[in-house]
Amino acid sequence: MDTLSTNMAFGGTQGVYRHASSATGTDMTFSVYIPPHAEGTTLPVVWYLSGLTCTHANVTDKGEYRAACAELGLIFVAPDTSPRGEGVADDPDGAYDFGLGAGFYLDATEPPFAAQYRMASYITAELPALVAAHFPADMARQSIMGHSMGGHGALTLGLTHPDRYRAISAFAPIVAPSQVPWGRKAFGGYLGADPAAWRRHDAVALIEDGARVPALLVDQGDADKFLSEQLRPALLAHACAAAGIDLELRIQPGYDHSYYFISTFMAEHLRWHAARLR
Amino acid sequence: MDTLSTNMAFGGTQGVYRHASSATGTDMTFSVYIPPHAEGTTLPVVWYLSGLTCTHANVTDKGEYRAACAELGLIFVAPDTSPRGEGVADDPDGAYDFGLGAGFYLDATEPPFAAQYRMASYITAELPALVAAHFPADMARQSIMGHSMGGHGALTLGLTHPDRYRAISAFAPIVAPSQVPWGRKAFGGYLGADPAAWRRHDAVALIEDGARVPALLVDQGDADKFLSEQLRPALLAHACAAAGIDLELRIQPGYDHSYYFISTFMAEHLRWHAARLR
Repeated sequence: MDTLSTNMAFGGTQGVYRHASSATGTDMTFSVYIPPHAEGTTLPVVWYLSGLTCTHANVTDKGEYRAACAELGLIFVAPDTSPRGEGVADDPDGAYDFGLGAGFYLDATEPPFAAQYRMASYITAELPALVAAHFPADMARQSIMGHSMGGHGALTLGLTHPDRYRAISAFAPIVAPSQVPWGRKAFGGYLGADPAAWRRHDAVALIEDGARVPALLVDQGDADKFLSEQLRPALLAHACAAAGIDLELRIQPGYDHSYYFISTFMAEHLRWHAARLR
Repeated sequence: MDTLSTNMAFGGTQGVYRHASSATGTDMTFSVYIPPHAEGTTLPVVWYLSGLTCTHANVTDKGEYRAACAELGLIFVAPDTSPRGEGVADDPDGAYDFGLGAGFYLDATEPPFAAQYRMASYITAELPALVAAHFPADMARQSIMGHSMGGHGALTLGLTHPDRYRAISAFAPIVAPSQVPWGRKAFGGYLGADPAAWRRHDAVALIEDGARVPALLVDQGDADKFLSEQLRPALLAHACAAAGIDLELRIQPGYDHSYYFISTFMAEHLRWHAARLR
């Protein structure tokens, strides 16, 4: 693992790191914030999954999570959103919503993506092992959050690993990718044409098929231009109500899809996670 | 004035605006954060001046000021650091520390810079009038802060307008530009070879020559790579001690010159300003 940068912030250390990933067969870059802590102690880990087009850098620059993580004693890990580099398969038209920057946090089964688009394995197996080896992380206390495509990732990985992640939350998540254009395009390309294979990667379908977690927190701006076509939080609300999952869905008046929205509610999400990571 | 973007954040509005500046003869872009407030009320204005290479965007993205401004009821204005555009004179070698992105918050007197590098007039006259006309600003309550070259700007404009700015603070400021390489290059180019003309644009020289303000707050990281050659806060400490100016100079162990440093202490600076703007 190579250290690309470290900077002191809010009494802790914001680092950016690169490593050769066996899951993706590429170099992968990620950021880790380590809050101030007593020597020898270990700290809970919050995973933050980013949205379409993002790298680790967007939330690292604009997420405004460090003050709350320093106060609450949380490690904050921000991975990339896809494999990258020469020779990595991409959208044939270079579109922003598939291929590079758009891995959708699943292991692809379709060529030419299956070889390298293995973001589920990367996020749930390879990167946790690396974090456990290099940082003062208590891997018995993990939680997961994300934005948009990363909200989809947090919900689906959280629902499929209920013993791993003690808290799951999202900002403006894609809750039912099988039912919306972004998801249908991505799942068709990564998983093939048969929607039956999509259900294990769709939060609403997972809940319909029996996945259970105690609670979810979701913030959604009502001025988000993707709200009605791509995000559709009512589908999650309906599924959670039917399944008895305690969903706190907060529709935030006036907020859009940007990091101005995310940063506004970041500290509240981190407090919600910290309460469940104690 | 054109509105380039507005986004809701922390209950208020982060905007980015562009206008044709008569001071610089160019289009100028700046950002303004308006915190939540009761209709019809006006709010104090904090000016933030950025460092070398920056535009309004750096602090707007990474400064983490909105939460504190929302809580304290402060308008936060972030101007650009120089005129920009086709035909604007620049460093002959395109260096980062002179010309574009490096206006040093003064009105140049030397050709070819004198025509457009009029950042002092822009920051203290033209832009305040625009802000007063378009936003719910109480122009009787202004304060100023900045980083590095912008810390120099905050100190020098603050010291030369003691009745205007009720609070003055800086992150890692250039305190004595006449005595350090960045400042000597810039002042030579903008003001000419005679150092006598530089003193009105040098915080330490201004204090030596009689400028007075009640108090200054300065944070400086001790891992800042520019500390000993370019910044030299001891020169400011010495001048303030001799002049009876209440300087709170805080050397912050482990912090560097980046926005990770600035964002860590931003809320404390804003609280210090708010106490003096009441």
